Amino acid sequence: MNKWYLSGGANTDVAVSTRVRFARNLTGFPFPGRMSSSQREQVNGLVREAAMHLTGEFAGVFHYAEMKELSDLEAASLVEQHFISPEFAVNREGKALLMSEDETISIMLCEEDHIRIQVMSAGEDLQAVYEQAVRLDEALDQRLHFAFDERLGYLTGCPTNLGTGMRASVMLHLPALEQADALRQLANTLGKVGLTLRGTYGEGSDAKGALYQISNQITLGLTEQAAIENLQTVTHQIMDRERQARNQLKQNEAFVDKVWRCYGILKFARSLDSEEFLQYISWVRLGVKLSILKNVDMEKVGRLLVITQPATLQKICGGPLEPRERDQKRAEMVREALSCSNEME
Amino acid sequence: MNKWYLSGGANTDVAVSTRVRFARNLTGFPFPGRMSSSQREQVNGLVREAAMHLTGEFAGVFHYAEMKELSDLEAASLVEQHFISPEFAVNREGKALLMSEDETISIMLCEEDHIRIQVMSAGEDLQAVYEQAVRLDEALDQRLHFAFDERLGYLTGCPTNLGTGMRASVMLHLPALEQADALRQLANTLGKVGLTLRGTYGEGSDAKGALYQISNQITLGLTEQAAIENLQTVTHQIMDRERQARNQLKQNEAFVDKVWRCYGILKFARSLDSEEFLQYISWVRLGVKLSILKNVDMEKVGRLLVITQPATLQKICGGPLEPRERDQKRAEMVREALSCSNEME
Repeated sequence: MNKWYLSGGANTDVAVSTRVRFARNLTGFPFPGRMSSSQREQVNGLVREAAMHLTGEFAGVFHYAEMKELSDLEAASLVEQHFISPEFAVNREGKALLMSEDETISIMLCEEDHIRIQVMSAGEDLQAVYEQAVRLDEALDQRLHFAFDERLGYLTGCPTNLGTGMRASVMLHLPALEQADALRQLANTLGKVGLTLRGTYGEGSDAKGALYQISNQITLGLTEQAAIENLQTVTHQIMDRERQARNQLKQNEAFVDKVWRCYGILKFARSLDSEEFLQYISWVRLGVKLSILKNVDMEKVGRLLVITQPATLQKICGGPLEPRERDQKRAEMVREALSCSNEME
Repeated sequence: MNKWYLSGGANTDVAVSTRVRFARNLTGFPFPGRMSSSQREQVNGLVREAAMHLTGEFAGVFHYAEMKELSDLEAASLVEQHFISPEFAVNREGKALLMSEDETISIMLCEEDHIRIQVMSAGEDLQAVYEQAVRLDEALDQRLHFAFDERLGYLTGCPTNLGTGMRASVMLHLPALEQADALRQLANTLGKVGLTLRGTYGEGSDAKGALYQISNQITLGLTEQAAIENLQTVTHQIMDRERQARNQLKQNEAFVDKVWRCYGILKFARSLDSEEFLQYISWVRLGVKLSILKNVDMEKVGRLLVITQPATLQKICGGPLEPRERDQKRAEMVREALSCSNEME
């Protein structure tokens, strides 16, 4: 079955992926931070049972795994794919994961909350992803009866999630706005309307490969649908601004030269660390989207973005590798992915 | 007819070209610095007449051109090809040039001396080049009777050339010794034995593209043949040291990666200034010589080194170009030269 990142999607010229996550908890149990191991086992068992008996679109979708059974590399690889949170990968005792084979849906059990439902898709597809997350949420709620307060909404382990318990985000590729140095101001503006723009590899970190995540911050005082629409409207505005900036860049000879050089380096380098790979592939991706580079297989490039990450790469190679070996293996994967491209035509 | 730099030659893995130059003067005329224009005309006419009536291997070899008839670009292009001296290209009134069509032989008239004979070849071929220069020297001497003193040897415009009047040089590609930071010390040592090692684009200038020229400095107190043998011995030692350093480098993964990246940039860049072109092509040339890169057409690369120089490039393009246009044209020439290479095999 194809992974989500290999499927098509809307607005993929700028948007890489969309995620919607719900924080939910069961009644009758303390939040995970204060649970005993037997309580964790109980919660994991209850949710597993419910998930396995879902009908309709969710019938037979989920696989169950105890997080402690995963190797460090497997866990780190899931983090790299944004499939689980970084926190979920450390101290894995008592945590469990339900996941769909195409990796679009994950349910983290006993993370900060009993249940963290996450639905992903390629491109920007907030409404559809949100709706699927809602259907899964409702199907599980029917069997599990989530902790809910009429005044406060869904009760969550951390008060910042109280209310809708929903966090929706879109990963955006914003090389042109980044180049135009427009992102700092944009991030400030977004903060004032309850949205956050940050580098994809966690808060405070620099954006690598011009990949930025926009997400909602407010979970209290508005409906989930309103939060989604708000995020969607702003995301579309940013995507349009990025497109305008790209059209400017396309006229820029130095930019076109840079795209080709990055392509040349990726196509022939014998060693690539993950950071420089992200930098170069960012420009190549943009070059393809602007038709500067032609006949580059973007599906292979999209796959590269996932499989060349340190832990995922090592997982694919079957075990731990020295940084030097990783960089060589990464370069090999990149050459292989670009070898069939006939950029000259 | 093929130009010299397209022909084969000995030791071309390290040596790019060999040049031998004789400074000669006619009796009965002051040195060029103090000649009247009619005297210059007379000297140019005499030498032209002599050169045109040479027999044997030099019969019909020479074309004659008044330097003032050349455009600035044409003159600068000849300098770039080391066919004439930089000084010969400025203030061209009263100067003339005799040259062979394959550009191996030039005779500058009324430069610092009445006659500057120069013979070039590809690779390192000091003995053969020297011998051809001697044959030409003797053939002209028979007709022109050069100024010669039993005690001082050939009389020259500048006392530093007095004696043999000979300057022999080999242009060497020394990227591995440069990388090993071995050249400063080598240059010091050479200075003590009357040889000079310097960047190819004139004294004091940095070496571009790791191209260095080794030449003799001493013209008094030893025979021409001894000077040639001395230079040849040392040149062969340096070439061997370069080869050893290259074999070390070949084991170096970072170096191999660098070679491939330079190749990738050259193959795809849309703009290349002359300095970065020289840097990258230097590594690519080395990569080919070490069989890291395969199926790269080195004849085309050798030709690139000549034709992408600023003045020569503009001459080929038919007129002056903005730096921006030159860099684009250079990148185009480089892409074209590398487009047929199938480096993957």
